Amino acid sequence: MMRHAGLALIPLPFQGEVRPGDDLVEKLRLALRQQKLTLREGDIVVIKHKIVSKAEGQLVELSRVRPSRAARAWANKCGGDPRLIELALAESRRVVRKKMLDKRRGVLITETHHGLICANSGVDLSNVDGGRRAALLPADPDGSARRLRRAIKKNSGVSVGIVISDSFGRPWREGLTEVAIGVAGIAPLDDFRGKRDSHGYLLRASAEAVADELACAAGLVCGKLKRTPVCIVRGYRAGAAQGTAQELLRRAQDDLFR
Amino acid sequence: MMRHAGLALIPLPFQGEVRPGDDLVEKLRLALRQQKLTLREGDIVVIKHKIVSKAEGQLVELSRVRPSRAARAWANKCGGDPRLIELALAESRRVVRKKMLDKRRGVLITETHHGLICANSGVDLSNVDGGRRAALLPADPDGSARRLRRAIKKNSGVSVGIVISDSFGRPWREGLTEVAIGVAGIAPLDDFRGKRDSHGYLLRASAEAVADELACAAGLVCGKLKRTPVCIVRGYRAGAAQGTAQELLRRAQDDLFR
Repeated sequence: MMRHAGLALIPLPFQGEVRPGDDLVEKLRLALRQQKLTLREGDIVVIKHKIVSKAEGQLVELSRVRPSRAARAWANKCGGDPRLIELALAESRRVVRKKMLDKRRGVLITETHHGLICANSGVDLSNVDGGRRAALLPADPDGSARRLRRAIKKNSGVSVGIVISDSFGRPWREGLTEVAIGVAGIAPLDDFRGKRDSHGYLLRASAEAVADELACAAGLVCGKLKRTPVCIVRGYRAGAAQGTAQELLRRAQDDLFR
Repeated sequence: MMRHAGLALIPLPFQGEVRPGDDLVEKLRLALRQQKLTLREGDIVVIKHKIVSKAEGQLVELSRVRPSRAARAWANKCGGDPRLIELALAESRRVVRKKMLDKRRGVLITETHHGLICANSGVDLSNVDGGRRAALLPADPDGSARRLRRAIKKNSGVSVGIVISDSFGRPWREGLTEVAIGVAGIAPLDDFRGKRDSHGYLLRASAEAVADELACAAGLVCGKLKRTPVCIVRGYRAGAAQGTAQELLRRAQDDLFR
């Protein structure tokens, strides 16, 4: 039997801060050199969205935010920062759930402009600058992924897959897991429907969200306290497939939990 | 700067079928030998639940199932197999959603006896024997994980972490991802709450469901058509932490989507 190659998850720490206007591909090149690594054809580069948001200037000075009455009321109730709630509402297309869990804790689940469903529209203070500015999600994460892929190809001649990730909570289960909010150069879903298993059984409902699984795998080496915003996944057969993270969003009419 | 080691995801294909009463640790030993691999201290062995269910005899001959009137009615409506629906209901503690998406497609989301929330209580015909028998989830996946961990320790002297995984759908997003339904020898949640990021910002809501991320990482190399029910995750700092997959289940009072 042939020896299976397996995958490698290679963490890529960054030195210094990513700032608005920074060239992420140049930062990536420096980080790779530091680790004596080069990208290979077919590598998948998983990037925490926070550095994409920072490079694209998706940062908002909290002191400049004027919270609406609705944002103030909700913040007051759940003990949150009204300016953060204001940003979360401004970044949303729709509130999915806004509910107190008990007398002190509340949750605001929104659908963002992109169609992502998550807490507070993904607006977040962590790993920015200690609480002065909030990071929004990238305006068009699939577009960001495509641009990064093109720039890496131009720079190094290598075709890679890109996954831009964020940590989302989910119903029913504790803890955050990483999800793909932007994708380029890979198919986000591996569709088994219509194929037969080794017993001849026809698979009916099996599409695997591999872009989310790639994001989760990277989450194991990136973490929140390690200054490691990038993970290279090596050995995954990406093929020449193309796709976007939009394909991972369930249409409202197929969803039972809106 | 120190070179980061990263993780390896090593697929472990099995030859032949797993049958009720089989010794999974012996099967694992053979599969490792075939690949010229040995387990190392701290390895995490991610195991698709299906082979655990099979070894434990959690298989039901469909021809012996007598569907209730409720199961027949629902199956008739959504075009499913009434015997499968009967098993899904029997394995459930509660129906979370039972709804037609359109005139032909219906979804039955249940809470299982274990407290897992998933489609059809995890009852499944794929990768069993072509549709004659259905596989139920293991009766006590955390117990199964603990027993496997102990047996591996006894057999090889090595302490490993165990994750037993299944593929679940989720609200809002397309595609299945792997989740940890049984865990031993690792902490399923990596809790950042109360820690500070590199900018001094206090993290408030950040616990990462690493057991689910380990399951997802393994999903990238296992797949549904590859006869590869096991993946070894090497290089993950598991520590001496202990935990169960029950810790991943959100309490009803903290959940907005029941």
